[in-house]
Amino acid sequence: MFSEGRIYMFRVPEGEEFIRYMHEFLEREGIEVGIVNAIGTLKDPKIGYFLEGEKRYKVIELRGTYEIASLIGNISLKDGRPFLHAHVVLGNSEGKAFGGHLIEGRVLVAEVFVLELKGERLERKMTEKGLALWP
Amino acid sequence: MFSEGRIYMFRVPEGEEFIRYMHEFLEREGIEVGIVNAIGTLKDPKIGYFLEGEKRYKVIELRGTYEIASLIGNISLKDGRPFLHAHVVLGNSEGKAFGGHLIEGRVLVAEVFVLELKGERLERKMTEKGLALWP
Amino acid sequence: MFSEGRIYMFRVPEGEEFIRYMHEFLEREGIEVGIVNAIGTLKDPKIGYFLEGEKRYKVIELRGTYEIASLIGNISLKDGRPFLHAHVVLGNSEGKAFGGHLIEGRVLVAEVFVLELKGERLERKMTEKGLALWP
Repeated sequence: MFSEGRIYMFRVPEGEEFIRYMHEFLEREGIEVGIVNAIGTLKDPKIGYFLEGEKRYKVIELRGTYEIASLIGNISLKDGRPFLHAHVVLGNSEGKAFGGHLIEGRVLVAEVFVLELKGERLERKMTEKGLALWP
Repeated sequence: MFSEGRIYMFRVPEGEEFIRYMHEFLEREGIEVGIVNAIGTLKDPKIGYFLEGEKRYKVIELRGTYEIASLIGNISLKDGRPFLHAHVVLGNSEGKAFGGHLIEGRVLVAEVFVLELKGERLERKMTEKGLALWP
Repeated sequence: MFSEGRIYMFRVPEGEEFIRYMHEFLEREGIEVGIVNAIGTLKDPKIGYFLEGEKRYKVIELRGTYEIASLIGNISLKDGRPFLHAHVVLGNSEGKAFGGHLIEGRVLVAEVFVLELKGERLERKMTEKGLALWP
Protein backbone atom coordinates (compact mmCIF):
# COMPACT_ATOMS: atom_id res chain seq x y z
CA MET A 1 0.00 0.00 0.00
CA PHE A 2 1.08 3.56 -0.66
CA SER A 3 0.57 7.00 0.80
CA GLU A 4 0.41 10.31 -0.98
CA GLY A 5 3.68 12.11 -1.66
CA ARG A 6 4.34 15.34 -3.48
CA ILE A 7 1.87 16.76 -6.01
CA TYR A 8 2.86 18.68 -9.14
CA MET A 9 0.95 20.34 -11.92
CA PHE A 10 2.89 22.10 -14.66
CA ARG A 11 3.29 22.67 -18.37
CA VAL A 12 6.02 20.96 -20.38
CA PRO A 13 7.76 23.58 -22.55
CA GLU A 14 7.04 23.60 -26.27
CA GLY A 15 9.49 21.60 -28.37
CA GLU A 16 10.47 19.09 -25.68
CA GLU A 17 10.15 15.39 -26.33
CA PHE A 18 7.52 14.39 -23.76
CA ILE A 19 8.97 11.13 -22.40
CA ARG A 20 12.56 12.39 -22.17
CA TYR A 21 11.43 15.60 -20.44
CA MET A 22 9.39 13.63 -17.92
CA HIS A 23 12.27 11.25 -17.16
CA GLU A 24 14.56 14.23 -16.52
CA PHE A 25 11.89 15.74 -14.27
CA LEU A 26 11.42 12.50 -12.30
CA GLU A 27 15.18 12.04 -11.84
CA ARG A 28 15.69 15.66 -10.77
CA GLU A 29 12.85 15.48 -8.25
CA GLY A 30 13.70 11.97 -7.08
CA ILE A 31 10.20 10.62 -7.78
CA GLU A 32 10.34 6.81 -7.89
CA VAL A 33 6.67 5.82 -7.75
CA GLY A 34 3.58 7.72 -8.79
CA ILE A 35 0.92 8.43 -11.35
CA VAL A 36 0.73 10.90 -14.21
CA ASN A 37 -2.14 12.41 -16.19
CA ALA A 38 -1.80 14.86 -19.03
CA ILE A 39 -3.69 16.66 -21.77
CA GLY A 40 -2.37 18.86 -24.55
CA THR A 41 -1.11 18.62 -28.10
CA LEU A 42 1.73 16.51 -29.54
CA LYS A 43 3.55 16.55 -32.84
CA ASP A 44 4.63 13.47 -34.78
CA PRO A 45 3.82 11.06 -31.93
CA LYS A 46 4.88 7.43 -32.08
CA ILE A 47 2.70 4.88 -30.35
CA GLY A 48 3.31 1.21 -29.73
CA TYR A 49 1.14 -1.89 -29.98
CA PHE A 50 2.54 -4.96 -28.23
CA LEU A 51 3.05 -7.95 -30.52
CA GLU A 52 2.79 -10.78 -28.03
CA GLY A 53 4.09 -13.43 -30.42
CA GLU A 54 7.12 -11.35 -31.37
CA LYS A 55 7.75 -10.01 -27.84
CA ARG A 56 8.15 -6.47 -29.10
CA TYR A 57 6.19 -3.33 -29.79
CA LYS A 58 5.02 -2.51 -33.28
CA VAL A 59 5.73 1.20 -33.79
CA ILE A 60 2.93 3.29 -35.27
CA GLU A 61 4.23 6.65 -36.50
CA LEU A 62 1.60 9.34 -36.66
CA ARG A 63 2.56 12.39 -38.70
CA GLY A 64 1.41 15.88 -37.86
CA THR A 65 -0.29 17.44 -34.85
CA TYR A 66 -2.61 15.52 -32.55
CA GLU A 67 -4.63 16.50 -29.50
CA ILE A 68 -3.66 14.46 -26.43
CA ALA A 69 -7.25 13.43 -25.71
CA SER A 70 -5.93 11.40 -22.77
CA LEU A 71 -2.59 10.46 -21.28
CA ILE A 72 -2.48 8.14 -18.27
CA GLY A 73 0.75 6.82 -16.88
CA ASN A 74 2.47 5.32 -13.90
CA ILE A 75 5.95 5.83 -12.47
CA SER A 76 8.06 3.03 -11.03
CA LEU A 77 11.68 1.93 -11.08
CA LYS A 78 13.33 0.24 -14.04
CA ASP A 79 17.06 -0.53 -14.00
CA GLY A 80 17.19 1.44 -10.77
CA ARG A 81 15.86 4.69 -12.26
CA PRO A 82 12.43 6.35 -12.40
CA PHE A 83 10.51 5.13 -15.42
CA LEU A 84 7.27 6.51 -16.86
CA HIS A 85 4.94 4.04 -18.54
CA ALA A 86 2.34 6.11 -20.36
CA HIS A 87 -0.54 5.26 -22.65
CA VAL A 88 -2.17 7.87 -24.79
CA VAL A 89 -5.24 8.62 -26.88
CA LEU A 90 -4.63 11.07 -29.71
CA GLY A 91 -7.18 12.94 -31.82
CA ASN A 92 -6.51 14.12 -35.35
CA SER A 93 -7.95 17.11 -37.21
CA GLU A 94 -11.15 15.17 -37.96
CA GLY A 95 -11.51 14.12 -34.31
CA LYS A 96 -10.61 10.53 -35.16
CA ALA A 97 -8.86 8.83 -32.22
CA PHE A 98 -5.74 6.68 -32.07
CA GLY A 99 -4.45 4.94 -28.98
CA GLY A 100 -1.63 2.87 -27.57
CA HIS A 101 1.64 2.92 -25.64
CA LEU A 102 3.34 6.32 -25.92
CA ILE A 103 6.83 5.90 -27.33
CA GLU A 104 7.58 9.55 -28.04
CA GLY A 105 6.05 12.82 -29.09
CA ARG A 106 7.17 16.42 -29.43
CA VAL A 107 5.26 18.79 -27.19
CA LEU A 108 3.26 21.70 -28.52
CA VAL A 109 1.38 21.86 -25.20
CA ALA A 110 1.36 19.35 -22.34
CA GLU A 111 -0.36 20.07 -19.04
CA VAL A 112 0.79 17.42 -16.61
CA PHE A 113 -0.39 16.26 -13.19
CA VAL A 114 1.99 14.10 -11.12
CA LEU A 115 1.12 12.43 -7.83
CA GLU A 116 4.07 10.84 -6.05
CA LEU A 117 3.35 7.66 -4.10
CA LYS A 118 5.39 6.74 -1.04
CA GLY A 119 5.79 3.56 0.93
CA GLU A 120 6.75 0.67 -1.32
CA ARG A 121 9.52 0.07 -3.78
CA LEU A 122 7.85 -0.78 -7.09
CA GLU A 123 10.24 -2.09 -9.70
CA ARG A 124 9.93 -3.47 -13.21
CA LYS A 125 11.82 -6.64 -14.11
CA MET A 126 12.15 -8.04 -17.59
CA THR A 127 9.91 -11.09 -18.06
CA GLU A 128 9.85 -13.96 -20.53
CA LYS A 129 7.06 -12.15 -22.36
CA GLY A 130 9.45 -9.41 -23.44
CA LEU A 131 7.80 -6.87 -21.15
CA ALA A 132 9.32 -5.26 -18.05
CA LEU A 133 6.61 -5.79 -15.43
CA TRP A 134 5.91 -5.34 -11.73
CA PRO A 135 5.95 -8.54 -9.65
CA MET B 1 -17.22 15.53 0.36
CA PHE B 2 -14.59 12.83 0.67
CA SER B 3 -11.16 12.39 2.12
CA GLU B 4 -8.34 10.23 0.87
CA GLY B 5 -8.25 6.61 1.98
CA ARG B 6 -5.86 3.83 1.08
CA ILE B 7 -3.80 3.94 -2.14
CA TYR B 8 -2.88 0.88 -4.20
CA MET B 9 -0.88 0.32 -7.33
CA PHE B 10 -0.48 -3.21 -8.65
CA ARG B 11 -0.58 -5.48 -11.66
CA VAL B 12 -3.53 -7.76 -12.36
CA PRO B 13 -2.22 -11.25 -13.16
CA GLU B 14 -2.31 -12.42 -16.76
CA GLY B 15 -5.38 -14.41 -17.67
CA GLU B 16 -7.76 -12.81 -15.18
CA GLU B 17 -11.00 -11.24 -16.34
CA PHE B 18 -10.44 -7.58 -15.39
CA ILE B 19 -13.82 -6.63 -13.90
CA ARG B 20 -14.25 -9.85 -11.90
CA TYR B 21 -10.70 -9.59 -10.53
CA MET B 22 -11.25 -6.00 -9.49
CA HIS B 23 -14.55 -6.80 -7.78
CA GLU B 24 -12.86 -9.59 -5.81
CA PHE B 25 -10.06 -7.17 -4.87
CA LEU B 26 -12.51 -4.46 -3.74
CA GLU B 27 -14.53 -6.94 -1.65
CA ARG B 28 -11.42 -8.42 -0.06
CA GLU B 29 -10.04 -4.99 0.84
CA GLY B 30 -13.40 -3.56 1.84
CA ILE B 31 -13.14 -0.60 -0.54
CA GLU B 32 -16.60 0.91 -1.02
CA VAL B 33 -15.86 4.23 -2.70
CA GLY B 34 -12.92 5.31 -4.82
CA ILE B 35 -11.42 5.86 -8.22
CA VAL B 36 -9.47 3.58 -10.54
CA ASN B 37 -7.07 4.22 -13.43
CA ALA B 38 -5.37 1.56 -15.50
CA ILE B 39 -3.24 0.97 -18.57
CA GLY B 40 -2.17 -2.30 -20.15
CA THR B 41 -3.36 -4.80 -22.73
CA LEU B 42 -6.66 -6.73 -22.91
CA LYS B 43 -7.80 -9.69 -24.97
CA ASP B 44 -11.25 -10.05 -26.53
CA PRO B 45 -12.71 -7.05 -24.69
CA LYS B 46 -16.43 -6.34 -24.74
CA ILE B 47 -17.54 -2.73 -24.51
CA GLY B 48 -21.01 -1.31 -24.10
CA TYR B 49 -22.85 1.60 -25.69
CA PHE B 50 -25.98 2.68 -23.86
CA LEU B 51 -29.14 2.56 -25.97
CA GLU B 52 -31.27 5.16 -24.24
CA GLY B 53 -34.47 4.20 -26.04
CA GLU B 54 -34.07 0.52 -25.24
CA LYS B 55 -32.73 1.10 -21.70
CA ARG B 56 -29.92 -1.37 -22.21
CA TYR B 57 -26.31 -1.57 -23.35
CA LYS B 58 -25.48 -2.64 -26.88
CA VAL B 59 -22.54 -5.04 -26.56
CA ILE B 60 -19.62 -4.48 -28.92
CA GLU B 61 -17.34 -7.53 -29.01
CA LEU B 62 -13.80 -6.76 -30.06
CA ARG B 63 -11.76 -9.80 -31.05
CA GLY B 64 -8.03 -10.05 -30.46
CA THR B 65 -5.55 -8.05 -28.42
CA TYR B 66 -5.99 -4.34 -27.68
CA GLU B 67 -3.87 -1.81 -25.83
CA ILE B 68 -5.75 -0.23 -22.91
CA ALA B 69 -5.01 3.30 -24.06
CA SER B 70 -7.07 4.55 -21.10
CA LEU B 71 -9.20 3.08 -18.36
CA ILE B 72 -10.96 5.41 -15.93
CA GLY B 73 -13.41 4.14 -13.36
CA ASN B 74 -15.16 4.84 -10.11
CA ILE B 75 -16.07 2.62 -7.20
CA SER B 76 -19.33 2.88 -5.28
CA LEU B 77 -21.90 0.56 -3.77
CA LYS B 78 -24.48 -1.33 -5.81
CA ASP B 79 -26.80 -3.84 -4.16
CA GLY B 80 -24.73 -3.32 -1.00
CA ARG B 81 -21.44 -4.42 -2.56
CA PRO B 82 -18.46 -2.57 -4.08
CA PHE B 83 -19.04 -1.95 -7.76
CA LEU B 84 -16.54 -0.73 -10.36
CA HIS B 85 -17.92 1.37 -13.19
CA ALA B 86 -15.13 1.62 -15.76
CA HIS B 87 -14.90 3.16 -19.21
CA VAL B 88 -12.10 2.26 -21.54
CA VAL B 89 -10.32 3.32 -24.71
CA LEU B 90 -8.73 0.47 -26.64
CA GLY B 91 -6.16 0.64 -29.44
CA ASN B 92 -5.83 -2.03 -32.13
CA SER B 93 -2.73 -3.08 -34.07
CA GLU B 94 -3.14 -0.11 -36.43
CA GLY B 95 -3.50 2.30 -33.50
CA LYS B 96 -7.19 2.80 -34.24
CA ALA B 97 -9.14 3.56 -31.06
CA PHE B 98 -12.43 2.18 -29.73
CA GLY B 99 -14.18 3.38 -26.61
CA GLY B 100 -17.10 2.75 -24.30
CA HIS B 101 -18.27 1.12 -21.09
CA LEU B 102 -16.02 -1.81 -20.15
CA ILE B 103 -18.11 -4.97 -19.83
CA GLU B 104 -15.27 -7.47 -19.70
CA GLY B 105 -11.78 -8.24 -20.95
CA ARG B 106 -9.12 -10.83 -20.32
CA VAL B 107 -5.90 -9.36 -18.95
CA LEU B 108 -2.59 -9.72 -20.70
CA VAL B 109 -1.24 -6.82 -18.63
CA ALA B 110 -3.13 -4.37 -16.43
CA GLU B 111 -1.36 -1.83 -14.24
CA VAL B 112 -3.94 -0.43 -11.87
CA PHE B 113 -4.08 2.57 -9.54
CA VAL B 114 -6.80 2.63 -6.88
CA LEU B 115 -7.54 5.57 -4.57
CA GLU B 116 -10.06 4.82 -1.84
CA LEU B 117 -12.34 7.68 -0.82
CA LYS B 118 -13.72 7.92 2.71
CA GLY B 119 -16.48 9.94 4.25
CA GLU B 120 -19.73 9.41 2.38
CA ARG B 121 -21.78 6.41 1.41
CA LEU B 122 -22.19 6.56 -2.35
CA GLU B 123 -24.70 4.08 -3.68
CA ARG B 124 -26.20 3.31 -7.06
CA LYS B 125 -29.97 2.84 -7.35
CA MET B 126 -31.75 1.60 -10.43
CA THR B 127 -33.51 4.44 -12.24
CA GLU B 128 -36.34 4.60 -14.76
CA LYS B 129 -33.72 5.10 -17.45
CA GLY B 130 -32.47 1.55 -16.98
CA LEU B 131 -29.19 2.77 -15.44
CA ALA B 132 -28.07 2.33 -11.82
CA LEU B 133 -27.05 5.86 -10.84
CA TRP B 134 -25.93 7.93 -7.85
CA PRO B 135 -28.54 10.27 -6.39
CA MET C 1 4.22 22.12 -5.51
CA PHE C 2 0.71 21.44 -4.33
CA SER C 3 -1.05 19.65 -1.52
CA GLU C 4 -4.35 17.85 -1.58
CA GLY C 5 -7.47 19.88 -0.97
CA ARG C 6 -11.11 18.85 -1.00
CA ILE C 7 -12.28 15.74 -2.84
CA TYR C 8 -15.65 15.42 -4.59
CA MET C 9 -17.38 12.65 -6.49
CA PHE C 10 -20.85 13.30 -7.86
CA ARG C 11 -23.19 12.99 -10.80
CA VAL C 12 -24.00 15.94 -13.05
CA PRO C 13 -27.77 16.09 -13.54
CA GLU C 14 -29.18 15.02 -16.88
CA GLY C 15 -29.70 17.82 -19.36
CA GLU C 16 -26.95 20.11 -18.06
CA GLU C 17 -24.25 21.37 -20.40
CA PHE C 18 -21.14 19.78 -18.90
CA ILE C 19 -18.63 22.65 -19.02
CA ARG C 20 -21.08 25.30 -17.85
CA TYR C 21 -22.25 23.10 -14.97
CA MET C 22 -18.67 22.42 -13.89
CA HIS C 23 -17.76 26.11 -14.00
CA GLU C 24 -20.76 26.94 -11.81
CA PHE C 25 -19.73 24.15 -9.42
CA LEU C 26 -16.11 25.39 -9.25
CA GLU C 27 -17.19 28.99 -8.63
CA ARG C 28 -19.70 27.97 -5.98
CA GLU C 29 -17.16 25.83 -4.15
CA GLY C 30 -14.28 28.25 -4.65
CA ILE C 31 -12.03 25.65 -6.29
CA GLU C 32 -9.20 27.43 -8.13
CA VAL C 33 -6.78 24.62 -8.88
CA GLY C 34 -7.35 20.90 -9.26
CA ILE C 35 -7.92 17.93 -11.49
CA VAL C 36 -11.07 16.35 -12.89
CA ASN C 37 -11.88 12.89 -14.25
CA ALA C 38 -15.23 11.79 -15.58
CA ILE C 39 -17.05 9.01 -17.37
CA GLY C 40 -20.62 8.89 -18.64
CA THR C 41 -22.62 9.72 -21.74
CA LEU C 42 -22.90 13.01 -23.64
CA LYS C 43 -25.28 14.24 -26.33
CA ASP C 44 -24.25 16.32 -29.34
CA PRO C 45 -20.73 16.98 -28.05
CA LYS C 46 -18.47 19.51 -29.73
CA ILE C 47 -14.75 18.89 -29.62
CA GLY C 48 -11.90 21.11 -30.72
CA TYR C 49 -8.67 20.53 -32.61
CA PHE C 50 -6.12 23.32 -32.34
CA LEU C 51 -5.10 24.81 -35.67
CA GLU C 52 -1.65 26.14 -34.83
CA GLY C 53 -1.30 28.17 -38.01
CA GLU C 54 -4.68 29.85 -37.54
CA LYS C 55 -4.33 30.22 -33.74
CA ARG C 56 -7.83 28.88 -33.18
CA TYR C 57 -9.72 25.67 -32.54
CA LYS C 58 -11.43 23.87 -35.37
CA VAL C 59 -14.84 22.81 -34.01
CA ILE C 60 -15.90 19.22 -34.67
CA GLU C 61 -19.62 18.77 -34.05
CA LEU C 62 -20.61 15.21 -33.24
CA ARG C 63 -24.33 14.51 -33.52
CA GLY C 64 -26.12 12.03 -31.31
CA THR C 65 -25.20 10.19 -28.13
CA TYR C 66 -21.61 9.24 -27.26
CA GLU C 67 -20.09 7.36 -24.35
CA ILE C 68 -17.52 9.46 -22.47
CA ALA C 69 -14.83 6.81 -22.74
CA SER C 70 -12.47 9.19 -20.95
CA LEU C 71 -12.53 12.76 -19.69
CA ILE C 72 -9.40 14.21 -18.10
CA GLY C 73 -9.17 17.84 -17.12
CA ASN C 74 -7.40 20.39 -15.00
CA ILE C 75 -8.65 23.42 -13.11
CA SER C 76 -6.76 26.69 -12.90
CA LEU C 77 -7.52 30.39 -13.05
CA LYS C 78 -8.31 32.28 -16.24
CA ASP C 79 -9.34 35.93 -16.15
CA GLY C 80 -9.41 35.56 -12.37
CA ARG C 81 -12.02 32.79 -12.35
CA PRO C 82 -11.84 28.98 -12.08
CA PHE C 83 -11.47 27.44 -15.51
CA LEU C 84 -11.78 23.79 -16.49
CA HIS C 85 -9.63 22.61 -19.38
CA ALA C 86 -10.93 19.16 -20.32
CA HIS C 87 -10.06 16.72 -23.06
CA VAL C 88 -12.35 13.87 -23.93
CA VAL C 89 -12.54 10.57 -25.77
CA LEU C 90 -16.01 9.71 -27.05
CA GLY C 91 -17.30 6.37 -28.31
CA ASN C 92 -20.14 6.05 -30.82
CA SER C 93 -22.66 3.23 -31.22
CA GLU C 94 -20.10 1.14 -33.13
CA GLY C 95 -17.46 1.71 -30.45
CA LYS C 96 -15.47 3.99 -32.74
CA ALA C 97 -13.58 6.62 -30.77
CA PHE C 98 -13.22 10.38 -31.29
CA GLY C 99 -11.02 12.64 -29.21
CA GLY C 100 -10.03 16.24 -28.61
CA HIS C 101 -10.59 19.33 -26.52
CA LEU C 102 -14.09 19.33 -25.00
CA ILE C 103 -15.94 22.47 -26.04
CA GLU C 104 -19.41 21.45 -24.89
CA GLY C 105 -21.75 18.52 -24.47
CA ARG C 106 -25.17 17.90 -22.98
CA VAL C 107 -25.13 15.42 -20.13
CA LEU C 108 -27.10 12.22 -20.16
CA VAL C 109 -24.88 10.85 -17.39
CA ALA C 110 -21.60 12.26 -16.06
CA GLU C 111 -19.88 10.79 -13.02
CA VAL C 112 -17.22 13.25 -11.97
CA PHE C 113 -14.22 13.11 -9.63
CA VAL C 114 -12.67 16.42 -8.54
CA LEU C 115 -9.47 16.76 -6.51
CA GLU C 116 -8.72 20.29 -5.37
CA LEU C 117 -5.04 21.27 -5.20
CA LYS C 118 -3.83 23.85 -2.71
CA GLY C 119 -0.62 25.81 -2.39
CA GLU C 120 0.11 27.70 -5.60
CA ARG C 121 -1.78 30.13 -7.74
CA LEU C 122 -1.90 28.64 -11.23
CA GLU C 123 -3.15 31.04 -13.84
CA ARG C 124 -3.58 30.98 -17.60
CA LYS C 125 -2.40 33.94 -19.65
CA MET C 126 -3.06 34.45 -23.33
CA THR C 127 0.04 33.74 -25.40
CA GLU C 128 1.12 34.67 -28.91
CA LYS C 129 0.13 31.17 -30.00
CA GLY C 130 -3.54 31.98 -29.40
CA LEU C 131 -3.70 29.64 -26.40
CA ALA C 132 -4.17 30.65 -22.75
CA LEU C 133 -1.35 28.77 -21.02
CA TRP C 134 0.32 28.38 -17.63
CA PRO C 135 3.73 30.07 -17.29
